[in-house]
This record gives sequence, C-alpha cells and structure tokens, in this order.
Amino acid sequence: MTNIADIEAAAERARGVVRRTPLLSSPFLDEIAGRPVYLKAEVLQHTGSFKFRGGWSAVSALDQVTRAKGVLAFSSGNHAQGVARAAQLHGVPAVILMPADAPKLKIENTRAMDAEVVLYHRAAGENREEIGDRLRDERGLTLIKPFDDAMVIAGQGTCGLEIAEQAAEAGVNEATVLTCCGGGGLTSGIALALADRAPGLTVRPVEPEGFDDVTRSLASGGIKPNNGPEVGLCDAVLTRAPAERTFAIMSAHCGPGLVVSDAEVKAAMRHAATRLKLVVEPGGAVALAAALFHGDELAEGPVIATLSGGNVDPAMFAQILAEG
Amino acid sequence: MTNIADIEAAAERARGVVRRTPLLSSPFLDEIAGRPVYLKAEVLQHTGSFKFRGGWSAVSALDQVTRAKGVLAFSSGNHAQGVARAAQLHGVPAVILMPADAPKLKIENTRAMDAEVVLYHRAAGENREEIGDRLRDERGLTLIKPFDDAMVIAGQGTCGLEIAEQAAEAGVNEATVLTCCGGGGLTSGIALALADRAPGLTVRPVEPEGFDDVTRSLASGGIKPNNGPEVGLCDAVLTRAPAERTFAIMSAHCGPGLVVSDAEVKAAMRHAATRLKLVVEPGGAVALAAALFHGDELAEGPVIATLSGGNVDPAMFAQILAEG
Repeated sequence: MTNIADIEAAAERARGVVRRTPLLSSPFLDEIAGRPVYLKAEVLQHTGSFKFRGGWSAVSALDQVTRAKGVLAFSSGNHAQGVARAAQLHGVPAVILMPADAPKLKIENTRAMDAEVVLYHRAAGENREEIGDRLRDERGLTLIKPFDDAMVIAGQGTCGLEIAEQAAEAGVNEATVLTCCGGGGLTSGIALALADRAPGLTVRPVEPEGFDDVTRSLASGGIKPNNGPEVGLCDAVLTRAPAERTFAIMSAHCGPGLVVSDAEVKAAMRHAATRLKLVVEPGGAVALAAALFHGDELAEGPVIATLSGGNVDPAMFAQILAEG
Repeated sequence: MTNIADIEAAAERARGVVRRTPLLSSPFLDEIAGRPVYLKAEVLQHTGSFKFRGGWSAVSALDQVTRAKGVLAFSSGNHAQGVARAAQLHGVPAVILMPADAPKLKIENTRAMDAEVVLYHRAAGENREEIGDRLRDERGLTLIKPFDDAMVIAGQGTCGLEIAEQAAEAGVNEATVLTCCGGGGLTSGIALALADRAPGLTVRPVEPEGFDDVTRSLASGGIKPNNGPEVGLCDAVLTRAPAERTFAIMSAHCGPGLVVSDAEVKAAMRHAATRLKLVVEPGGAVALAAALFHGDELAEGPVIATLSGGNVDPAMFAQILAEG
C-alpha cells in the first residue's frame, strides 16, 4: 500500500515542476458556511487540475527504458491531460483513450499536449480495456491508471503535504478536509499524508447525487458500485466504484462520505467565481458545495475543501453563471 | 516621493495580512504570445484586486488616534473594497463615495465590508470632491486617495517586491513587465520596487483605447488628460489623468505605454478563464491583452503581466465568455 515515504518521494520528484497551489479564503464564503472555509485551489495546478500531480509522479517514477516507450491512459479528461503533460515534459509518447462524449475542451487540450487521443464510443458498446490492451501490446506502452496505482496516489498525496503545511501556517490544527471524490485517488493520497502530518485534520470524501459509490462503500464496509447512469454534470468524478486499493486507504483514514446535488454544485461554482475569482468545473466544486450547504453534517470548526479542477467548457460555465 | 524604504515598510506592515499572489503561466498562452508569459494573479488578492495592498498600507500607516476617527475614499469599486476591508480589519469606520453607475457587485461588496457607501450621480453634475470635503470636515475622516498618495503607492509596490522575487525564482532576469494602468498607483509602485530589486525588468503601462492618458503623457513629457467619455468597458482603469506624483515616478522608471482595444481585452478575459482558470475583470485584463496581441511593440524575451482585478459582474462575465 502507498505510504508516507512514497508521498515524500513523489514530492521530491515534483520539486520545481508541480505547483504549490494556494490555500484561499473569503469572508463571504465563511459567512455562508457559518465557519472558516479554506479552499485548496488545485484549479491553478498545471493542466488545470490536481491530476498533474499523479501523472507526473507516475511517469517520473518509471525507469528510463520503460518510460521511453511511452505511456497509455484511459480518461474522460483531467487524468488524460495530467499524464499527457507529464509525458510531454519528459519527451516521451502518450496515448490517451477518451470517451467520444468527454468535454470538448479536455479532448482539445490533451491533443495540444502532443498526446495521441483515441476516442471510443461508450454507447456503441466499445470496450476501452480491449482497445487499451491491444495498444499496449502493440507498442509496449505502460498503462497509467487514474487512481488504482500506487505512484498516482503518492502524487496526489503531495497535495495533502501542502494542506498540512498551509493549515498549520493558518493556525488550523483541527478541521474537516472535504475532497472531491471520484475513484478516490486524491482522497486516498490526501488522507495518507494528513494521517502522518496533521492527524487533527479529518478527510471526508464528497460525491454528487447518483454517483455516491464511495459514500455507500464506506458506510457498508464493502465496495458498492454505482448502477445508475454513467454520465452527469460532474464528469470528473463519475467513476463506477473505488478500487480495492483506494477503498482500503479510505476505510482506514476517512470519515463518512457526503453527497451534494447538482444545484448545490452550480451554486458553489458561482460562489467560487464571484468570491475567489476561480473557474471551477462541476466535479471540482462538489467539496465546496458540501462546505457551503451541508454544514449540519459536519463537525464544528474550520473546513478545508479541495477545488480539484477547472476544465469546464466556457459555454457551459457561462450558462451556469447566467443561471445565478 | 515614495521610495524603496517606504515599500519595504509597507511590506512589513502587510506581513501575514496581504496575500503573496502566485505568478502563473500556461503553455497555451506562451504559444499565442510567441514568448514566455507570466501572470501576476492579483485577482487572488483579498477583495479581488491589488487595491487591498494600497488600502492596507495607507490605513495601517495612520496613527491610532487619526485612524480611529475613520477613513474616506472615492472609488468606482476596487479601491473602495480595498480601503473598506482594511478599515474593517482595523475595526475603524470607512465612508466610501461611489458613482451610482459603478458595477453592482463592487457596491454590494463594499457595503458587505461594513463600509458606509454614499452614491453620487456623475450625470447629474454632483461633485464628489464637495461631498467628500463635507463628510471629512463633519466627521474628522482621513481621505485615502486611490493613487495620489505616498502610502498607497508604497502598498502597491509590495506587488513589485513579489514580482522581483518570483521572476528570479523562475530564472527570469530580463523581461518586460506590463501593468494594468489607471492613475498609475500600481504601475508606480511596481516600477519603484523593480528599479531597486530587479533592474532588468522594465515596466510598461497598458491602457484601454480612448483612455490612454498615461501613454500620451509619457510620450509627450507632460500630463495629458483624457477628454473623451468617462465610462467604458474597463471601469477599473478609467482615470482622467495620472497625478503629478505618479507621473513623475513613471517618467523616471517606465518605458512607453501600450494601448489595447476592448475586443482584445475580452479575448484576454476568455483566455484567462480557459487557460489560467481565473476570473479577470476588463480593467484587470488590459496587460494580458497587450502580452498576447501586441508582441510586435515589445522587446524580445519574456513578459510578466499583472492580472490586477477580478471584480466583474457575473452576468457581464458570462456574456463575454459566451461571445468567444
């Protein structure tokens, strides 16, 4: 299992490449939440999401010969960009398998980072694993999984090291840390880092309604996949289920999950734009939505929430702003 | 005249209060500009603009007895919020005279910071100086001018100290620094700081078309006010003319001004949202517009541009995004 030494090693490899993103706040958000709220602004990370941390960690951890053959990723978007940019900076090939209905901006950005994008059609029953296996065998590519990968989790954990430092700088020693949770890579990484560095900070994963696999899994003590629709507003966090690896870490280190509505997510996006001057994508705003609108489910005291990504199509963002 | 010691003293008073904003970049913006572009993200400053630096500097520099009576400011918005928040944090009264046609968000935010907002009607010929004089005399308030004030300029100069440090960290020793320029407070402060700390960085003010008083003043060697309309897209930087104080500093330390169109400003705002995940107001995007679209008027090498504020009404921001 990934441990604090892996995270420290990932932080060492990330030095001078991965951004230390700021921990922000606004008196207006504190007032809505009725408590101090701090936001870890991962939208300002390279490629616009925390996924660059994991992508860089995984690609930089490969031995040179393996890395030179190239890497492969399955992703609806942010992991694609994180891996593509990490490969580009290392000067090695990246092939990214993306669903054809992923946000256009994410597909375009991934291509602009020199990655070869292979689109597959979920509705047509195309199986990305089969396509991926074939590409991997043909070209000797290394698969970088979005969350079920020790080095990816270690990379996301560097965000947790920063939260521990920045919370201490802000004088916060006890707090709830709300994470935007898909497959649990970010949540696991942060939870591992905080368990070691800031045990007074308790991680709680946040998911959108209808995609609450982690919340139900943690509540029941076993992995409970989603059985509903595969697409929704919060594309970045719509995984079917956590992996054994991330579920084990979250079970050991996280409090109960929280579930937010799409309407709360949109309101959180508007507050982030107005009060923090940040563009946050729907999946990146679920933790802020919980901080602002689910205070009755939280322990007293400060909240730290990740703003995990900002890769939203401008037309959709404009539409959501205009609805406010 | 404000000097580097004043800026250092302002930085000392600002410690632990004013945010050190990040210097950001994006390979997509570098490609458009054809050179490395760094953005000083003052939209992430408290109150959403660099103006909090000057407001805090001026209010914190007052002696306790004077400060306790309260402060007064004239402002269409960002200076109002900067002074109001500084006064609120010091626990002293603030009265802000704002034009009735200032952006609604700026008026609301100023009120939310416990300031007493007094609106005046430019079109009706109401004279803000007369109103201000009366309020000052009646209540013993101290006027904090938006740029013609040594302590305000010193506060804005703290942004220059950070640029000097951050450019050095990025390995940039020679560059053009483009500033969003209204009355020249930010431009003067940064220019003074860089002249001392990073003489290889040359400041050039940027203004919107039709409001190029500083550009014409620097070109002619004497103050040349604007004689056209008083309102426009870039509300934050539409001053009539620089002050003698800021003009003298800019004449001594800045290169020629640059002028950008409203269409370029809107395009810059869209690029900032998509590539940097930042909400930038029109007046805060003029320097980025020059960096992206006026490269032929710039010396070779990297450019550092201020993103000086992000207080744009959400409806206007949505409209500008949707036009792209």
